[in-house]
Formats: sequence, C-alpha cells, structure tokens
Amino acid sequence: MNEGVEWAVHSCLNLAWLGERAVPAARLAAFYELPAAYLNKQLQALARADILTSVSGPRGGFRLARPPEKVTLMDVVVAIDGDEPAFRCTEIRQRGGSGGGDADAYRKPCAIDAAMRKAELAWRRELAGQTVADVMTTVEHTNPGVPDKVRRWFDDTR
Amino acid sequence: MNEGVEWAVHSCLNLAWLGERAVPAARLAAFYELPAAYLNKQLQALARADILTSVSGPRGGFRLARPPEKVTLMDVVVAIDGDEPAFRCTEIRQRGGSGGGDADAYRKPCAIDAAMRKAELAWRRELAGQTVADVMTTVEHTNPGVPDKVRRWFDDTR
Repeated sequence: MNEGVEWAVHSCLNLAWLGERAVPAARLAAFYELPAAYLNKQLQALARADILTSVSGPRGGFRLARPPEKVTLMDVVVAIDGDEPAFRCTEIRQRGGSGGGDADAYRKPCAIDAAMRKAELAWRRELAGQTVADVMTTVEHTNPGVPDKVRRWFDDTR
Repeated sequence: MNEGVEWAVHSCLNLAWLGERAVPAARLAAFYELPAAYLNKQLQALARADILTSVSGPRGGFRLARPPEKVTLMDVVVAIDGDEPAFRCTEIRQRGGSGGGDADAYRKPCAIDAAMRKAELAWRRELAGQTVADVMTTVEHTNPGVPDKVRRWFDDTR
C-alpha cells in the first residue's frame, strides 16, 4: 500500500479540525515535513474522488468536500491506491495440461480467486465501516490536545 | 500481491489430489505452462514454511507436508508474500509541527494505524478460516472432473 494513504488520512483529519478554511498543499505538507509536490498529488487524487474540494486563488487550497462522518477509510484508500484487488487471478487453470476440455467449467469463478476475494471483501467492509470522524474521535480521546495543536500551528504559519 | 500466491495454492491443491507422491517442480510448472525456475522458488518457500516437504533423489520432488485441512490460505500467503502489514505507518505524526511535545502521546498507537490494522486483521482472519481442503471441496463440487484430470495428467507425464 502506498505511503500516501497515511498522508492522505492525516490530511483529512487536519482539514476536518480546521473547519471551513482552505489550506494550501505546501502548508499541509510542512506540518509533517513531507515533500509538498508528492503530497499535492495525493490531495489532487482526494479531490478527484470528491473527498476534498480544491479552491483556487490567493486564499486557495484544499478543504473537506463533505463532513468527516461521510468519508470512510475505504474512500481514502480507493482514491489513493485505486480499487484493483490485491489478489489478481490470472486463470492459470485454463493453461497447459490443466486447460482445455469443457468451456463451461471456466464460466464458474476459480475457487481460489473466490476465496481470496472473500477475504478482501472482509478488509473492504472493515475500512468502509470506519470514517474519518471515527478516527478523529479516537485521537480526541487518547490525545485530547491534538485538535488545538493543529489549529494553533496552522493559525501561526498562515 | 505476488502472482506466486495463485501458483502456490494451485500447486497445493494438485499435490493434495496426487496423494503421497513427490512431484518435481518442473512437472508442477508444466501443468500450467509456468516458468519452472520461478515456480520452484515458490515451492521452496512453501517447504520452508512446512507446508510442503522437499524430497531429494531421482523420485524426488514436493509433496504436502500436512493434510490439506491443516493448511490455511493465510499460511500460503504468508509463506509466499511474508507477513508484513500492507499498511505501514511511518509515524509522520511525530514530525514537523505535528511532532514534539509530550513523549507519552506517542506511546499510544496512531489511531490511523490502529484502524488500518483492524481491517487487515479481518482479511487475515478470513484467510485463516479457509483451508486448502475447503478450496478442494469447492472445486470438486463445481468441477467434479478436476481431481481425475489432474491424476491422469501427472500419471501420463511421469
């Protein structure tokens, strides 16, 4: 998985704590000393997925396009990493000595592919069941000072 | 995920249908027209994980080291792909403006990392709950001719 997923989720949390304000990619990157051009690519991907809104102009930047309750971790992972399955069946069962014979036999999905997909579905379901708001709640519970720290830093370096 | 996972699971199924007989990597590869040297690497990895036994000598090759009921898909995936999590937290929360302050705050795991791990655990649990024997049962149900086809091909090309 792309390291951009970690960056993207953190950026969503920060934008949620910052409210309606649009924040430039360079500021979001500086908060973690990340390479701004590369974080900008992830933020553009989030904007294409309608998770962020990109605001142009001198006070422009990115802000959340929807409330954090409406952004799941699955949304973010798909925006950054795409939605290709991790396991890709290449249908080797149809090759060589294994192949040939009754074409009907291959209409039914490969049992290995089906088993792997079942596991990926469990992963997706879990990610789809956790929102950015849920992660915010966890952070606010374990480290109550974080939201204020974020707001202060982005105020001071505006 | 490594394409070797598909090859490895198929090879486990075939070895299970072939019973006690040791089969050379080249034969297992030829059944699907796979590159033998590369499949051999996957089979060696399965042997290191005690899923297969490597038998040396002129009648040597690989056979299952345990009954297929005792080999889960998680065992095979870990043998081939390792058990590193797909999401790797790089603790960017400790960097730049986000970092500093109370060291205690970072003793608790990052909430994003925890959320991603929860999803990976669901994936692992699902893979650990499906054995090679389960996949064999599915194949035998949907394509009852497969086990005999496998035995005939490996008998004829011995």
